[in-house]
Amino acid sequence: MPKFADRIKTMEGTATIIRDLFGAMTDPNIISFGGGAPAKEALPVDALHKICNDVMADPALSITALQYGNPQGYLPLREAICKYLLEPKEIDCDPERVLITTGGLETMNLICQIFINPGDVILVETPTFVHCVEVFEMFQARCVSVECDDFGMILDDVEAKIKQFHPKIIYVVPTFQNPTGKTLPVDRRKKLAELGSQYDVIILEDDPYRDIRYSGTDLPPIKTFDQTGNTVLANSFSKIFSPGARLGYVLATRELISLFFQIQTATISHTSMLTQVLCAEFFHRGYYPDHLKKICQIHRERCNKMMECLDTYFPEGTRHTYPDGGLFTWVELPGGLDTKELLPEAIQRKVAYVAGEGFYTDPGKGTNAMRLSFSAVLPEKIEIGMQHLGNLFRSRL
Amino acid sequence: MPKFADRIKTMEGTATIIRDLFGAMTDPNIISFGGGAPAKEALPVDALHKICNDVMADPALSITALQYGNPQGYLPLREAICKYLLEPKEIDCDPERVLITTGGLETMNLICQIFINPGDVILVETPTFVHCVEVFEMFQARCVSVECDDFGMILDDVEAKIKQFHPKIIYVVPTFQNPTGKTLPVDRRKKLAELGSQYDVIILEDDPYRDIRYSGTDLPPIKTFDQTGNTVLANSFSKIFSPGARLGYVLATRELISLFFQIQTATISHTSMLTQVLCAEFFHRGYYPDHLKKICQIHRERCNKMMECLDTYFPEGTRHTYPDGGLFTWVELPGGLDTKELLPEAIQRKVAYVAGEGFYTDPGKGTNAMRLSFSAVLPEKIEIGMQHLGNLFRSRL
Repeated sequence: MPKFADRIKTMEGTATIIRDLFGAMTDPNIISFGGGAPAKEALPVDALHKICNDVMADPALSITALQYGNPQGYLPLREAICKYLLEPKEIDCDPERVLITTGGLETMNLICQIFINPGDVILVETPTFVHCVEVFEMFQARCVSVECDDFGMILDDVEAKIKQFHPKIIYVVPTFQNPTGKTLPVDRRKKLAELGSQYDVIILEDDPYRDIRYSGTDLPPIKTFDQTGNTVLANSFSKIFSPGARLGYVLATRELISLFFQIQTATISHTSMLTQVLCAEFFHRGYYPDHLKKICQIHRERCNKMMECLDTYFPEGTRHTYPDGGLFTWVELPGGLDTKELLPEAIQRKVAYVAGEGFYTDPGKGTNAMRLSFSAVLPEKIEIGMQHLGNLFRSRL
Repeated sequence: MPKFADRIKTMEGTATIIRDLFGAMTDPNIISFGGGAPAKEALPVDALHKICNDVMADPALSITALQYGNPQGYLPLREAICKYLLEPKEIDCDPERVLITTGGLETMNLICQIFINPGDVILVETPTFVHCVEVFEMFQARCVSVECDDFGMILDDVEAKIKQFHPKIIYVVPTFQNPTGKTLPVDRRKKLAELGSQYDVIILEDDPYRDIRYSGTDLPPIKTFDQTGNTVLANSFSKIFSPGARLGYVLATRELISLFFQIQTATISHTSMLTQVLCAEFFHRGYYPDHLKKICQIHRERCNKMMECLDTYFPEGTRHTYPDGGLFTWVELPGGLDTKELLPEAIQRKVAYVAGEGFYTDPGKGTNAMRLSFSAVLPEKIEIGMQHLGNLFRSRL
């Protein structure tokens, strides 16, 4: 074999974490709090049955769905995004500034292709979404962690680290963050957009969970405070429509969208037209409002069940977040328990979680922490799984 | 805006060519010989109507199609690839050595992520597929052209250039090549595989057109001569199933597939499950043999019509290939005519082609050449378009 590219080496550690994650997700005998999949009961099967049928019976639409398309994305889907997802949040937008991606993660890949040379710095949250760190490592970026409190990034530390490291990108999941479930308050959102403009840094706002809210009130996206085009809004249809469709989108300036276009053309040519047509029909036919209610209801119940089980079964001194939405809670165990060490035993008891360490870019942090996802597990199974985990952890104190 | 990555600069020229290509393809008032789309009459609309309906009515399969999946790809699709596409060509394979990609182009992107550092050399055909050159340029690879004759790469020149440039990859479209329609003879295929093994270079065999044959007999893929795993077979479902589905696959060693897995995980997470499930059903239900006959029949008729029109309408002294299959013919005009210069006039006459220059990595070559695609144009429109082009070219001699 010829010698591999240098990036293969920088990706090694994170790649293992991700692979383990996929492994635990797919074993049907394990109650997995590991993945980030939505409830299968929350997938729009009936709506898509009807839509598929109509699309394939339509002489023009069926050809559109099966033929090559515009690399920027299917126009009716870009229109649906503006009309049903962005404008209601008072985000200044038009379809010319939206590009469709093959899932939310592709946006990270495309934006790195646009901006990142090896050694360039990206600021990330502490802890942060491990899957994106893998993308950043593939581009040989240097990830630098920003200090966070119970509400997310501490803005003084952001500014200090901008001055010290001159990052090109600040990566942030402001709403129901992955992995912690935390939400960034409105004053910090505004300030972050301003820091992006002031220091000419890209604020990469990754906001896939925001519509799945169980309590509290909607906060304006960081993008609404952006005056200079430095904030790039990335989003995904995985949690509100279907992860298997692999659809996401990005809203940015026209100049940036034309670079996104160029890079996507050289990466996968364009996103599947078939899934784009189906998704556009889903929104234009008005299925979304009721579907979203259903998703929220299903996930809210599971979230409540998990909160209840944490208080009932987990050892005293356990700390955890109470997410207002999304799919995750972040749990810190007392008494020096090591979640990575305990994971094989948990899996023997047929329960999986993701150990906290992998979500930190600095080694040795989060050893007592774990990410628990409640979304893909039925409430009665949440009860059983959490009881097993609680028993395990209490037996080791 | 922060400073763009260095790769944005290396991509500039090629990106413009590609964008023009997409532009000419989508104007409905133009008879376009420019794109590489299959005939819309060759898309399996009726089969997919039935399959979509059944998949969405199936409680298990519908969830599989809409939920997250394995980044290596949906197992029944990998099995279908082995059983219906690779084994009949006597290619040694198993589903563990196959990975599904989001279209054929993604394989180029993934393999560059695995192997290419800036400055690494990739050998390409003369002329070569411009879209792949764009990918290679995004990775700041140095593309070096290998001399070609009427049958493709001249192997003595390949060996000389391996010794001189120490390439990591040799990129070759051996069957009905894009842009020329040429096919590499069997002895050269064998020798190319051997050179890959001998000098430890990856032979990247891109073979999306091979099943669409109108005349002559099937040739064994380069991969069948590979003894060391140095040949990587890349293929696409765009021409034999649907470009809009965005599906392709790669066959390589297990070691390489595990790297493809890792890189795809960090790029788009995985390919759409929905399109994979539909495609797997299409093959397992036995639609492919009859569908392929239909595709070949439709495209053969268009190919013949174009060959006839070239002889009838184009100026004396025109040289062109007689492809045994695929979507393209390569035309060289006499008398110093410049195809790039003449293109705006052709478009004024409502006919588009791709000027030859863009398919060369060295400037100044192919100025009298053009790629003509007959696949997406009805025979009667081919007649009209070719007559207009012929009139234009003859008027300038």
